[in-house]
Amino acid sequence: MNGFRDNIHQMAGYVPGEQLNATDIVKLNTNENPYPPSPRVFDAIRAALTGNTLRKYPQSSGEAFRKVAGRILGVEPDAILIGNGSDDILTILTRAFVPEGGLIVSPTPSYILYETLAQIQGARFESVRFTDDWQLPKPWPKPGANLTFLANPNSPSGTCLRPAEVARLAKEVGGPLVLDEAYGDFAEWNGISLLKTCPNLIVTRSFSKSYSLAGIRFGIAIADPATILELTKVKDSYNCDALSLVAATAAIADPMYFADVRAKIVATRGRMHAELASLGFQVTPSHANFLWCRRTDRPHKPVYEALKAKNILVRYMNYNGYDGLRITVGTDAEIDKLLMELRKIV
Amino acid sequence: MNGFRDNIHQMAGYVPGEQLNATDIVKLNTNENPYPPSPRVFDAIRAALTGNTLRKYPQSSGEAFRKVAGRILGVEPDAILIGNGSDDILTILTRAFVPEGGLIVSPTPSYILYETLAQIQGARFESVRFTDDWQLPKPWPKPGANLTFLANPNSPSGTCLRPAEVARLAKEVGGPLVLDEAYGDFAEWNGISLLKTCPNLIVTRSFSKSYSLAGIRFGIAIADPATILELTKVKDSYNCDALSLVAATAAIADPMYFADVRAKIVATRGRMHAELASLGFQVTPSHANFLWCRRTDRPHKPVYEALKAKNILVRYMNYNGYDGLRITVGTDAEIDKLLMELRKIV
Repeated sequence: MNGFRDNIHQMAGYVPGEQLNATDIVKLNTNENPYPPSPRVFDAIRAALTGNTLRKYPQSSGEAFRKVAGRILGVEPDAILIGNGSDDILTILTRAFVPEGGLIVSPTPSYILYETLAQIQGARFESVRFTDDWQLPKPWPKPGANLTFLANPNSPSGTCLRPAEVARLAKEVGGPLVLDEAYGDFAEWNGISLLKTCPNLIVTRSFSKSYSLAGIRFGIAIADPATILELTKVKDSYNCDALSLVAATAAIADPMYFADVRAKIVATRGRMHAELASLGFQVTPSHANFLWCRRTDRPHKPVYEALKAKNILVRYMNYNGYDGLRITVGTDAEIDKLLMELRKIV
Repeated sequence: MNGFRDNIHQMAGYVPGEQLNATDIVKLNTNENPYPPSPRVFDAIRAALTGNTLRKYPQSSGEAFRKVAGRILGVEPDAILIGNGSDDILTILTRAFVPEGGLIVSPTPSYILYETLAQIQGARFESVRFTDDWQLPKPWPKPGANLTFLANPNSPSGTCLRPAEVARLAKEVGGPLVLDEAYGDFAEWNGISLLKTCPNLIVTRSFSKSYSLAGIRFGIAIADPATILELTKVKDSYNCDALSLVAATAAIADPMYFADVRAKIVATRGRMHAELASLGFQVTPSHANFLWCRRTDRPHKPVYEALKAKNILVRYMNYNGYDGLRITVGTDAEIDKLLMELRKIV
């Protein structure tokens, strides 16, 4: 069909991580949580499974969710925007702030979707290299963008900038700064407290990782209520479905379960780091639920392929020649299997 | 916050239909289906309620759904794009075809969201008045738009153009024509068979109305596979969640239940039409699950308000002075209650 915009025709499209159908796969490639969501999530969905819930439109702004989440996060309910996954939130932000021909900036290597969002919007994308120890260059070399994305903790590195650094970046960029905390729940600090002093900051969160809800698609933005009101104009009226809303509400309302899962993942992450290092990998200290692993004695891609042949899926990532393996923190049994195979391979 | 695009700051935002919380509301304002979805939908969701389904990312392109839906609709699976509700599909189409400053055209009065989508995209919106008997003017006065939307059956009228008229419009517009069949399942014909002869046609469907699934958000586009492949670049990788996908698959795989619900709604619609006409309303013959009702002896808004005072919610719609009541076809008991109150009011 004719009529597609040039920017759409020319772009390649974002390629999500592999999803193999085999049931005995050890899946360590897309940073899913290896543990199921809180039992309360299942109870809440079952309780919501009525004809009226399914046949009627859901709450447009997710009032019930926002009330509970606001209490847990320590913000006003009106400071929260609900999204059909964190990616929906990032799309809404792009459409709200970035005109055609506008500029999106992000540090690199980081989440590849930021560039895809620029391509869909018909905007330019420019990146700024992290320093060798995953810090930001001083001063920030690309101020004045229509939108700046900072994944913190970052992927693939798992590194996490301190709040003072984020505040400095917010000041230097001038325009809106999106602090993408998809992995924020695994870190030791986060950016919500910065919202009071950084008026151009927007914090985003995903329920896919820490709350084990990748399957139901839920994410949020947190910002001042006036900003959220403007962003609401851009979102679909009913972007979050009724079952996702009750699932996310039940998940965030169970902080004990959340803390337990988080503790298990942090513990496994520590053990993984030590064991991978003993196998000769250079492992970057991680504040997320994955580890960025590199080695100098052999290429990374054959290691990925050898693991895949054993039904162990990790993520091989290549950023213009800077490559490595991003490995999700799985259950202890999954990581034992990974380590056993790696010992044979390297 | 500064930095919002001018088009976003200046727009008012789409206002979805009222959703009252009272439980004894007779809700005839947003064209939800008064009957629950197929029992198979509940079974499918319950069967999918496992830790793995919730914690893992869903199928990106909805392969399992597309296989079943392709068989039912008589198209290739690759001819189907899945969406988080029909509104998500309309958004994807806008972003794929309409540049900033581009042009969206639609007949009027029709679905108000088309203009909202133009505003979010920073595009122009122009409308073409239907003729007095809800036909299209000949020749079509606005060819060459980046995107033309035709709701068929149309809202608020419920009228339905014949396939030959749609084919003529497709030829005359030149650019992509979206045939929005959100209510297509209630009509006697549809546009899927036109896809073979109209290469610029894209058909969209909603599962909110005919399949009683407004709460789970699901819609599709049907077009030639090359077009679907381009549109896939614009959609979020995981725009449809795992539970919505199994719900929609179960719904479309139960054509007997679907036919039964459809027959009940069509029967009630016929009775409603006759009774509303006997109460002095000018009722437009409807091919959808609602009726467009006007009268000349009194203003419409007080009728809407009097019904609302009795916990009966209908949609008062006003298109620059051309106004009326759009009333959803409910259950027979709901319609009896509506008619009883209307007899007192008019």
